[in-house]
Amino acid sequence: MQPSQLSALGRRVDFPAIARLMNAAFERPGVLSLAAGFTDNRTLPLAEVAEAARELALAGDASVLQYGANQGNTALRAAVAARLVAMDGGNPCGIDASRVMITNGSQQALHLAASLLCDPGDIVLVETPTYFVFLEVLKGLGIRAVPMPAGPSGEPDLAGLGNLIDALRASGELARVRLVYLVSYHSNPSSRSLSLEEKAGLGRLLKAALPTVAVLEDAAYRELGYDGGGGACSVFAMPEWDGGPRLVLGTFTKTYATGLKVGWAACDDDLLLGRMLHYKGHQDFGTSAYAQALVQHAVRSGAFDRRLELLRSTYARKCGILDAALRREGLERAGWSWERASGGLYLWLAGPAGLDTGFDGPLFAAAMREGVLYVPGELCVATAGRDNRVRLSFGVLDGAELEDGARRFARAALSV
Amino acid sequence: MQPSQLSALGRRVDFPAIARLMNAAFERPGVLSLAAGFTDNRTLPLAEVAEAARELALAGDASVLQYGANQGNTALRAAVAARLVAMDGGNPCGIDASRVMITNGSQQALHLAASLLCDPGDIVLVETPTYFVFLEVLKGLGIRAVPMPAGPSGEPDLAGLGNLIDALRASGELARVRLVYLVSYHSNPSSRSLSLEEKAGLGRLLKAALPTVAVLEDAAYRELGYDGGGGACSVFAMPEWDGGPRLVLGTFTKTYATGLKVGWAACDDDLLLGRMLHYKGHQDFGTSAYAQALVQHAVRSGAFDRRLELLRSTYARKCGILDAALRREGLERAGWSWERASGGLYLWLAGPAGLDTGFDGPLFAAAMREGVLYVPGELCVATAGRDNRVRLSFGVLDGAELEDGARRFARAALSV
Repeated sequence: MQPSQLSALGRRVDFPAIARLMNAAFERPGVLSLAAGFTDNRTLPLAEVAEAARELALAGDASVLQYGANQGNTALRAAVAARLVAMDGGNPCGIDASRVMITNGSQQALHLAASLLCDPGDIVLVETPTYFVFLEVLKGLGIRAVPMPAGPSGEPDLAGLGNLIDALRASGELARVRLVYLVSYHSNPSSRSLSLEEKAGLGRLLKAALPTVAVLEDAAYRELGYDGGGGACSVFAMPEWDGGPRLVLGTFTKTYATGLKVGWAACDDDLLLGRMLHYKGHQDFGTSAYAQALVQHAVRSGAFDRRLELLRSTYARKCGILDAALRREGLERAGWSWERASGGLYLWLAGPAGLDTGFDGPLFAAAMREGVLYVPGELCVATAGRDNRVRLSFGVLDGAELEDGARRFARAALSV
Repeated sequence: MQPSQLSALGRRVDFPAIARLMNAAFERPGVLSLAAGFTDNRTLPLAEVAEAARELALAGDASVLQYGANQGNTALRAAVAARLVAMDGGNPCGIDASRVMITNGSQQALHLAASLLCDPGDIVLVETPTYFVFLEVLKGLGIRAVPMPAGPSGEPDLAGLGNLIDALRASGELARVRLVYLVSYHSNPSSRSLSLEEKAGLGRLLKAALPTVAVLEDAAYRELGYDGGGGACSVFAMPEWDGGPRLVLGTFTKTYATGLKVGWAACDDDLLLGRMLHYKGHQDFGTSAYAQALVQHAVRSGAFDRRLELLRSTYARKCGILDAALRREGLERAGWSWERASGGLYLWLAGPAGLDTGFDGPLFAAAMREGVLYVPGELCVATAGRDNRVRLSFGVLDGAELEDGARRFARAALSV
């Protein structure tokens, strides 16, 4: 068939950059990937999940293998709400099981929210940098991602944001802004968390200009802080964000069993949550009830909390290995800079000014020659253009392989 | 928030009729449901899935709990293709693993295909009656479902279809027809299968008028024919459907383990398949790898084929119970007629002419008083309006409960 036979959406959706990276890895089997945002296979609870399956079978309730409710497993939704409220230290929005829905990873919630809040041409304000897969979702839907300015350490630049708002107002586009997207805990890609003060400042400024704008807080990495704390409270507990619908997303794919693909969204607005549920009903009328039952079993038994402890210490240790290896290889002396992460799976490195880290630039070619993959920074920035930064992940590799990956990356970086 | 803050899609997506039925069931616990298209809990392989989980754990390959490829488990895709080709008795379209994608039930494939082929206002030609959840998907997307006429026994009315095509041509709308949707094996709701001749006749007529129109064959119930055969070959093996992209969908939710939510789509057109994969990447970048591994384990071990035998004999038996009970209660003498199913989960009954079986009609009220639920025929017909038919499912109930459900339905039917 011809592209002209596709819908406008069909003509727009494109080969994702993530697939390009994955293909590069598949085509060269010896390559070490510091690109993939995968979790560490050695931390995945294969035996534990089998034991949960055995216990579900012994319990004999076959409804875990039946269709479930579109909104998801009630006990799991209640547990998600309780954990969220406990981390927030309060519940002014009244989040409970009725305001949580289970999704196919948090990715589905991102797609649902963007689809239901924005028409093609509408604007989503995103951080600089931001989660690159969401940028591709927006592009596919024809929605414009507009970056909010950031300061030299990645902190929100409120003066710059004020100027951006003024410019949008002047061009008559301010009303097209329908959503603010924050990856506020151990961000993918920057590993940075927004402090309570920074998040409050953003809320005050944005709500003054856009009183009813929706906010979507992507908390995928919130429980992967190495200190075990939940960090700043979510937008649910911040009066600075009152006035428009609030969504907070999370997932068990990073914090428990990746391949079960169970995520969640909580929403304080019944209209928006209802529409997200309707549209999910059209897409699949419910996430795998069995996958949900396995996760719920782990949450109830305490296996989830024990796994979380293991993951935090594993990723803290691996972060240290990658960070130390890069410094040992002399990357800083060559003009690179970065901060050691305090949670999550990533280091976000800035190369020398003017370096092009993109697919067609010299660093990527050198890295492919050395046999190491990274995520180019330009993918993570809403305004296309040359970028001198890279995302390195310590999710997959460990020990000697991780050190080898760091050496290869450093050799590539020092050669350009 | 206000509806005006939603996207056009967000304003359109509506409370699904299926949810109304499910709520009616939840609100009245004693009610017997002949409405739900659920499978029989007693047939679900709870112990078998736990044993598969144990074997996956013993094998020790943690990648089954990792992210998988967006397109799905390669071995499972190869098995799907091989089964399809075997049932078709030939493979002129070259269907293999590369042309199969795994989806969250076949429902996701329905949503992807409609989204990528049709803009709001475009037309999908559907059978009369057709799968009512797909009608709701189309309505949500702003796509018009136009029913193809059927004869008195549900057979395609080719003369009527010719007139419909002429009318669409005359009104300038023929080019808006982007997709033909066929539920051609033991259809939900009618239990009817299209014969090879009927499907060929539709292909010839439609392809003469619309040479490049896409066809989507929903084969969810194909392997649930009680005689164990795959019926007529799919559109892949029919030259009458040459010229436009062809999609065939299926699912393991009806034929193996419902709650794993694993379905599939096969497509002979690389552009369309590619765009469906891109859009799936935006929605979830891959169905649960663990759920796929469990299904793949069952297919490889032969457990799936053994289960299929059990399901066929179970549903054949239950079909017989419901059919006999309805006849014993005198429904035929009261002007009702139907055919006993030869596969699938449904009986499709026509009541006396002029009877309104809808939610607000006398039969539904009587059925609620008797404590039995059914699916009103009007939900299954693209042109809204009074309908005298009902879908009864023998998926969930069995034995005395199924007979009791039949008695309650008959009492309601005889009272109006």
